[in-house]
Amino acid sequence: MRPNKSDELFMVKAIDLSEQNILKGGGPFAAIIVKNGEIIGIGTNRVTIDNDPTAHAEIMAIRDAANKLGTFKLEGCEIYTSCEPCPMCLGAIYWAGISTIFYGNTRKDAASIGFNDDFIYAEIDKPIEKRTIPFISLLSDKASIAFKMWNDMDNKTEY
Amino acid sequence: MRPNKSDELFMVKAIDLSEQNILKGGGPFAAIIVKNGEIIGIGTNRVTIDNDPTAHAEIMAIRDAANKLGTFKLEGCEIYTSCEPCPMCLGAIYWAGISTIFYGNTRKDAASIGFNDDFIYAEIDKPIEKRTIPFISLLSDKASIAFKMWNDMDNKTEY
Repeated sequence: MRPNKSDELFMVKAIDLSEQNILKGGGPFAAIIVKNGEIIGIGTNRVTIDNDPTAHAEIMAIRDAANKLGTFKLEGCEIYTSCEPCPMCLGAIYWAGISTIFYGNTRKDAASIGFNDDFIYAEIDKPIEKRTIPFISLLSDKASIAFKMWNDMDNKTEY
Repeated sequence: MRPNKSDELFMVKAIDLSEQNILKGGGPFAAIIVKNGEIIGIGTNRVTIDNDPTAHAEIMAIRDAANKLGTFKLEGCEIYTSCEPCPMCLGAIYWAGISTIFYGNTRKDAASIGFNDDFIYAEIDKPIEKRTIPFISLLSDKASIAFKMWNDMDNKTEY
């Protein structure tokens, strides 16, 4: 059945915001989050405006929606993003528990105008010791104590 | 040569923060970012405290460091994280341009106490149409206009 007419309208809004964001000095990306037919989160790429490398459109939209709803779980929500999420944003979408992802441009389209999404996807695919950035294991025994503390705790908020 | 004694001291600090964070009601994770031997960013997991699914330790540390330095690029910085980064945080580390990653626990350790890191890594590996969350392509032609605008623009801040 999906996508339907209302999905298209939400995506048009995300795309319009992505165009406006370029004129505001940000990257060409925007996203909106919808629950029960209502927009509950909006985000645009603000990396260079806010000096925040994590300020991608989807991250900003998720933070906005979670803040508005007062919850760290966005189950039953859809995200409409003007471009396929990068690994950072994909991870955030999974952690948030968003139910459906609609996207416009692809990671290959993003690569073709100079963004690193596709490169980061390729890096994730590699074994840890073959990546461009060194990943070095250190003090794993000591680090495990916090995990044991967490595991043994009764009154904790899981997520 | 690495890791050396000072790497161990920074990791001990990250691990100590991860233990303290449990007592503050957060998840068992912390990270610190170091540049030229000096701590420039600290982050702990605040997902359930802040109602923010993106508030993982590494994301918080990157935002803190970028804010302190007034830049969206953390080249020449190391991150010491009490656990191997999840895909969201790995993506953020790559976008920030951090040079070296030291980690304590692994994604498998995280899975063993109930966290989804390993599941999300497995999802990223799948073709888009085989993932648990539906990824639906929509209005790609219209979305491509913003990318063309970006590509054609002269005065832009790239990242």
